[in-house]
Amino acid sequence: MSDERLARVALSRLVEPEDTEVHDLVSRLGVVRAVERIVAGGGTLARFAARVSALDVDRDLAAAHRVGARIVLPGDDEWPLGLDDLERGPWVLWVRGEGHLAQLVSRSVAVVGARLATRYGEQTAAELAATLGSSGWCVVSGGALGIDSAAHRGALAVEAATVAVMACGIDRSYPASNSELLQRVAASGVVATETAPGSAPMKSRFLHRNRLIAAMTQGTVVVEAGLRSGSRNTVRHASDLNRPVGAFPGPVTSTESAGCHQEIRDGRAVLVTGAREVVELVGHIGDDAAPADRSPALVVDALPDADRAVLEVVPYRKAVDLDEVARLTTLPVLAVRAALARLEGAGLVDAVEGRWRKSRASAQLRLAVTPVEAGA
Amino acid sequence: MSDERLARVALSRLVEPEDTEVHDLVSRLGVVRAVERIVAGGGTLARFAARVSALDVDRDLAAAHRVGARIVLPGDDEWPLGLDDLERGPWVLWVRGEGHLAQLVSRSVAVVGARLATRYGEQTAAELAATLGSSGWCVVSGGALGIDSAAHRGALAVEAATVAVMACGIDRSYPASNSELLQRVAASGVVATETAPGSAPMKSRFLHRNRLIAAMTQGTVVVEAGLRSGSRNTVRHASDLNRPVGAFPGPVTSTESAGCHQEIRDGRAVLVTGAREVVELVGHIGDDAAPADRSPALVVDALPDADRAVLEVVPYRKAVDLDEVARLTTLPVLAVRAALARLEGAGLVDAVEGRWRKSRASAQLRLAVTPVEAGA
Repeated sequence: MSDERLARVALSRLVEPEDTEVHDLVSRLGVVRAVERIVAGGGTLARFAARVSALDVDRDLAAAHRVGARIVLPGDDEWPLGLDDLERGPWVLWVRGEGHLAQLVSRSVAVVGARLATRYGEQTAAELAATLGSSGWCVVSGGALGIDSAAHRGALAVEAATVAVMACGIDRSYPASNSELLQRVAASGVVATETAPGSAPMKSRFLHRNRLIAAMTQGTVVVEAGLRSGSRNTVRHASDLNRPVGAFPGPVTSTESAGCHQEIRDGRAVLVTGAREVVELVGHIGDDAAPADRSPALVVDALPDADRAVLEVVPYRKAVDLDEVARLTTLPVLAVRAALARLEGAGLVDAVEGRWRKSRASAQLRLAVTPVEAGA
Repeated sequence: MSDERLARVALSRLVEPEDTEVHDLVSRLGVVRAVERIVAGGGTLARFAARVSALDVDRDLAAAHRVGARIVLPGDDEWPLGLDDLERGPWVLWVRGEGHLAQLVSRSVAVVGARLATRYGEQTAAELAATLGSSGWCVVSGGALGIDSAAHRGALAVEAATVAVMACGIDRSYPASNSELLQRVAASGVVATETAPGSAPMKSRFLHRNRLIAAMTQGTVVVEAGLRSGSRNTVRHASDLNRPVGAFPGPVTSTESAGCHQEIRDGRAVLVTGAREVVELVGHIGDDAAPADRSPALVVDALPDADRAVLEVVPYRKAVDLDEVARLTTLPVLAVRAALARLEGAGLVDAVEGRWRKSRASAQLRLAVTPVEAGA
């Protein structure tokens, strides 16, 4: 593993998310030298001394390995591009699950809300998530009780992969009563966190976690929230990131809807009443990129076999060269070249300095494309 | 009765509300000559022949008299000023009840909604109306079943005068099951309509009626409305008249809230969850005019007896001269002059070419002022 990767894993252990001083240090020195400075200590960095003395990157990696988790860094194929919009993004994501995180969130909606949800809220969240999941949208939530759980369950009910972004270590299940649900999430989707293995869920980590949910999705929908619900913090992040925000109304007699009503009144959220309106709210990015009169699935169905095979192996983020595509597909180079030309003409891959990667439009095709990169 | 008044009563009988041709005719010729033309008939005016042959203004006035109704015309003291904002306002209002219409609606909110309301909607409307009524706001509605009835009842429950604007003749009760409620409305407030005595409630008249509700109030709130509810037509009128519009949310599973949600999504209505937010929405006119730190009632309580007596008799719309005020109060002219000067200084009356009328701010004082003009 490169020094940079090791340094980022170390930062995940040493530093709480969004630490301004460390982000400044990294932007000046890079992650490797920043970690060296923190380890050397002194001055304001002395505050990390206790964590430095307990630092053991190999132990953290081993702990992640034991629960089948992997690490995902900026620049990795699985890194959610939306996180790059954060001023102080995560150093690393600890990720487990069968899903390909970047592909899943390339067409995703955050469905969040209060832990103390009503039956109305939970049913609304589950139905929304099920309809979104059936329409090829990935539901991202926080794995908590109440609305979060209902959202994950709704997606799983229609066999749609879903993403849970947690506030604790990847080797922990919080709340404990949700450990089976999180196992089901991981079976087809992804469980992710920015905190090191073993980390306890703390109030501040929930708030930091919320920015990840807001940033990696194309929009955030709050289903039910009291006036002081933490999900309003996610709304704030999404709004600050210029992501569209929707909020479900409820009876004015329900305190669990009061936060939603306030977000709508404050103009931070648009009132939405169902999945169709949610897609209308967040879907314009995909609509702009995709042919309006043909669904992505149809586009792929119409491709020659060679083109489909080529499209499958071209990564979404890191461009690869012709030879690499030929190697991965076991197709002749000339056939690959012709396929890439056709795919480029269809807007499904982009040429970047003689190398190839999936276009934004083809991010919508994940349902029809086997994510072979996911296992890499 | 003047020819103009008789002509307007005739128009109320001959012409359906908002008849474009007749409004054009009146704006060119005035009401008296317009009626003469209609009675003469011919050309496109032949369509009124049947009604002309049945015209009997004395009979209509007698029918109104039998149910204790009076007529109110533009320029009359009881005429709601907001109606002047309509492009094609009513020719006359047929009015019954103990309230003074102009004073009541000078600080009023339209509370409207579906006839097919849910228990949630009716409770919300009743609670809203009760709180508005307790705060000195007059609730105006359409006297129909469902939300309208709940709104009137909520106001009456706190002994606040309320106004019902009907789509049928002033001598009819529609729906019949609401006749007792309308009697209660008239006992302290006003029942009003623009259609002649005996007129049946027709679909088109409900739609015309809705513009009166929207125009005579400072704002409109829709509590519950299906997608095709007629109350959305009132919202449209209020919005077109630049009156603030509020809508209550409800469960997304309730079709009776779907119209409210759509109005909010379309930006025609602001989401409101209670009386405080409704007053915030519609109340800025009163706030601008009234001293911010003193309630109108306190202002009046602090006035000398002579000033209160003078304020009581100064009309809201038509300015009167010093001698008239002296006559009505039986106070010496010098005392009246001094009182008027003090009232003008307090912003409670305005001088208009040597005559006096109530200021906009004093419109808020109706609770503390006996409407002696109402019986005139």
